[in-house]
Amino acid sequence: MAYAYWKSGKIADNAVFDLYFRKNPFQGEFTIFAGLEECLKFLENFQYSDSDIEYLRKTLPPTIEAEFYTFLRQLTVKDVTVYAIDEGSVVFPRVPLLRVEGPLIVVQLLETTLLTLVNYASLMATNAARYRMAAGRHIQLLEFGLRRAQGPDGGLSASKYSYVGGFDGTSNVLAGKLFNIPVKGTHAHSYVTSFLDMSELRTKTLAHRETGQEHDVLALSSAWRKRLALLLETLENEASDGEMAAMISFAIAFPEGFMALVDTYDVKRSGLLNFCAVALSLNDLGYRAIGIRIDSGDLAYLSNKARETFAKVAQTYNIPWFEKLSIVASNDINEETILSLNEQGHKIDCFGIGTHLVTCQRQPALGCVYKMVEINGQPRIKLSQDVAKVTMPGRKDAYRLFGADGHALIDLLQRSVESAPKVGEKVLCRHPFQESKRAYVIPTRVEPLYKVYWQGGQVCQPIPALDEVRARVQSSLHTLRQDHKRNLNPTPYKVSVSVDLYSFIHELWLQNAPIGELS
Amino acid sequence: MAYAYWKSGKIADNAVFDLYFRKNPFQGEFTIFAGLEECLKFLENFQYSDSDIEYLRKTLPPTIEAEFYTFLRQLTVKDVTVYAIDEGSVVFPRVPLLRVEGPLIVVQLLETTLLTLVNYASLMATNAARYRMAAGRHIQLLEFGLRRAQGPDGGLSASKYSYVGGFDGTSNVLAGKLFNIPVKGTHAHSYVTSFLDMSELRTKTLAHRETGQEHDVLALSSAWRKRLALLLETLENEASDGEMAAMISFAIAFPEGFMALVDTYDVKRSGLLNFCAVALSLNDLGYRAIGIRIDSGDLAYLSNKARETFAKVAQTYNIPWFEKLSIVASNDINEETILSLNEQGHKIDCFGIGTHLVTCQRQPALGCVYKMVEINGQPRIKLSQDVAKVTMPGRKDAYRLFGADGHALIDLLQRSVESAPKVGEKVLCRHPFQESKRAYVIPTRVEPLYKVYWQGGQVCQPIPALDEVRARVQSSLHTLRQDHKRNLNPTPYKVSVSVDLYSFIHELWLQNAPIGELS
Repeated sequence: MAYAYWKSGKIADNAVFDLYFRKNPFQGEFTIFAGLEECLKFLENFQYSDSDIEYLRKTLPPTIEAEFYTFLRQLTVKDVTVYAIDEGSVVFPRVPLLRVEGPLIVVQLLETTLLTLVNYASLMATNAARYRMAAGRHIQLLEFGLRRAQGPDGGLSASKYSYVGGFDGTSNVLAGKLFNIPVKGTHAHSYVTSFLDMSELRTKTLAHRETGQEHDVLALSSAWRKRLALLLETLENEASDGEMAAMISFAIAFPEGFMALVDTYDVKRSGLLNFCAVALSLNDLGYRAIGIRIDSGDLAYLSNKARETFAKVAQTYNIPWFEKLSIVASNDINEETILSLNEQGHKIDCFGIGTHLVTCQRQPALGCVYKMVEINGQPRIKLSQDVAKVTMPGRKDAYRLFGADGHALIDLLQRSVESAPKVGEKVLCRHPFQESKRAYVIPTRVEPLYKVYWQGGQVCQPIPALDEVRARVQSSLHTLRQDHKRNLNPTPYKVSVSVDLYSFIHELWLQNAPIGELS
Repeated sequence: MAYAYWKSGKIADNAVFDLYFRKNPFQGEFTIFAGLEECLKFLENFQYSDSDIEYLRKTLPPTIEAEFYTFLRQLTVKDVTVYAIDEGSVVFPRVPLLRVEGPLIVVQLLETTLLTLVNYASLMATNAARYRMAAGRHIQLLEFGLRRAQGPDGGLSASKYSYVGGFDGTSNVLAGKLFNIPVKGTHAHSYVTSFLDMSELRTKTLAHRETGQEHDVLALSSAWRKRLALLLETLENEASDGEMAAMISFAIAFPEGFMALVDTYDVKRSGLLNFCAVALSLNDLGYRAIGIRIDSGDLAYLSNKARETFAKVAQTYNIPWFEKLSIVASNDINEETILSLNEQGHKIDCFGIGTHLVTCQRQPALGCVYKMVEINGQPRIKLSQDVAKVTMPGRKDAYRLFGADGHALIDLLQRSVESAPKVGEKVLCRHPFQESKRAYVIPTRVEPLYKVYWQGGQVCQPIPALDEVRARVQSSLHTLRQDHKRNLNPTPYKVSVSVDLYSFIHELWLQNAPIGELS
């Protein structure tokens, strides 16, 4: 396609492309825009290498003129300008996330990479933000999805953008290293099954946190287990010795960070009993355990059961913090599971979420597209039988209009030649395609959505740190009315066009659409 | 977890892990195993770098002993042995794809990477193989999904493994370069909309293929369009001039490879007419056009309409090959769309498939797991309330038993200490968990499924080229009975255990499961 442009003499042509999506994902009414920083990095590194040219020369038809390869080798993005919405913002269908302007051939060649960098990043950040809303502000959310992502790099993107969307950490250590995201995890079932019984405990002692004196944790834990079995009305000999050995060894390795998986054999009859025994031994030595993870079974029931157990222990032995031990749940969790657990009533403090988070199972792709809207100053429209697929022609600017209560009221697209809407002045906002849908809006605040992020061959805005983008997601979501955000039948947020843009679109449409003929 | 193992003195422990899945994806009854070459490359490059150690030192608790970092820095996979099924083979639930043996800490550290390398690769190859079966052998399948994958690397994996599964090419040029996969694509709508009318055609001439004489393609095409409008009973002035200009310029750039998108404005009233006009002009100059792409609308109807048009032109102007022009369809296609198009009757020669292929929308993750089955020669079992999640303990070998007609009958797992089943000898195959399900099998061929792929710090099998793996997918699928492969309610393929393994599993299970108590 680049060659055909070149061969057609379109080297000096200048084009404007909009990158946007047509529908919010997950049956929701909002999307989080992410991936901008990666797009800018891509632009910084854009070039065709000698080996790329070599490959293309072998692959393209022999009729391609040699001069074209010289042209490609020298191609740069120094004449490209990218306008973008801030990364981490709440965004809506049809409002371009990026407006890319520059030499036609160059901006066309950017298409697929920009799409792949924005699509998954935005989908993932949106998904994570939805999990965050479902879980509420006070529950910890950890991303555990690397093993189910599209390969190692898909996994890295998943970790990064789930953090942006509101997760608290990841079990992907490389993501932690590369993006400075908190890494959190527990041990696996194999750690537990690697111990068969107490005889495998090669180290049994731990130094008291204050006195430094070594104590036998196995002896302490065995004694505690005996007492606890009576208190909790379970049978000591039903609890797995291998599991207790594993927990003791883990506690000795991480006395300040003891978090144990309790469902390897049986949560109620083995896991909880062993955990409490080891946690109480740690307490004897001046350490506080962190909590448990449950990875199977009825999570609502088991978390309540665990909390009850902790409360009983706390009360019986007068150790108040024991009741507050952390309960992590992690079995095949998705947004609906969390909402359903909320309804049933649970005592979970933290969800570890993998597969459904990173694959975005409810909708595994965001349908961003990249459409030409202007060339050499002339607008372009792409028609379609499907109205939703008709493009909005011309170079446009976008504004978000806010109401008196601080909430976003409507997004407004205008032709770039129009002047920006003003605070306190009435503006008529029209539905882009339905003639009768119009509304007057008097904004109390007007936010221009675009900034120039790339111009003259360089990034020309400060690039926020990941934590700032993450914070923007929450503050931007905060400006959105609750009814747009709810899980069930949310109200669509309105995206409108100015009167001028409306006429402009519809004139071009009529000019380009053939008149039907019934026969 | 590695630190806890280390701290517990489990440095010399030796473990066996199985990597397997529990359920075939896409409501099907088979899976294609892929990702092995990547796993071996990972092993070849396995090590903790200084910067990794530096990062871990900052991140792990300060109580970690310094010696552990020295241990990690020196960790190698030279004592690891990996048994694997050949990449590209048809595989089934519960039969380990990899058996990984070696020092406990090392093989544990491999878990997540091996899973992420096998999970998506196998899922994608399986998905592609299903599309291939749905489309039939003679339809071209092209992967167009980079923009909807999990970032650029997710996209590369998608291209690679869709090719392995049976696709013919990709539009991802980097994948073409890296993996030597055929790259195929057409132009985008923006190419068409970049031309407003004929005046934008800066080059109008093309040399005749044989005589070398330059001809005015615009004049030829305009004349053809006039004649064709009468023949096809459409109105010449309803066809877009910008579209024809775009097609002419593309034909001039690729006279031997003219393939045009015909749905930018209106397939019947504009796209087809313009395409035929330009294709006939090319024919005048000694070139054969390739075909069209349709990216919207009713694909069955439009493909039939296009084929009819081509037939009419072929007959009227006595150009037989014109009837056989290629018709590519590419709008949101999935396995069901193809099956439904087959039913309706279509004339499509090639599908370009993106989103649904690369995201595996019907099931976006394969649930491979990695479970410890033996440690220091002793079997390990992980129990679960859910029978499907109980692990099969011990070091096992796997065999595929074939019947007289050449089809695979059953897979058989045995303890490694048992001798292999023999051709012509009756073997009792048992369901791993349902006591009453047993069958005698007399195999006419026995295929041991595992080979040693990694040992002594190096790859120890020849690694097949991508095309060989791709061929194995088809030959392996060919050994599977049709009823296991059909789309609707396929028959499950049986995976069994030997009598010895059955007893072994169930004894261990009873030993480890606590006895319930009703109250």
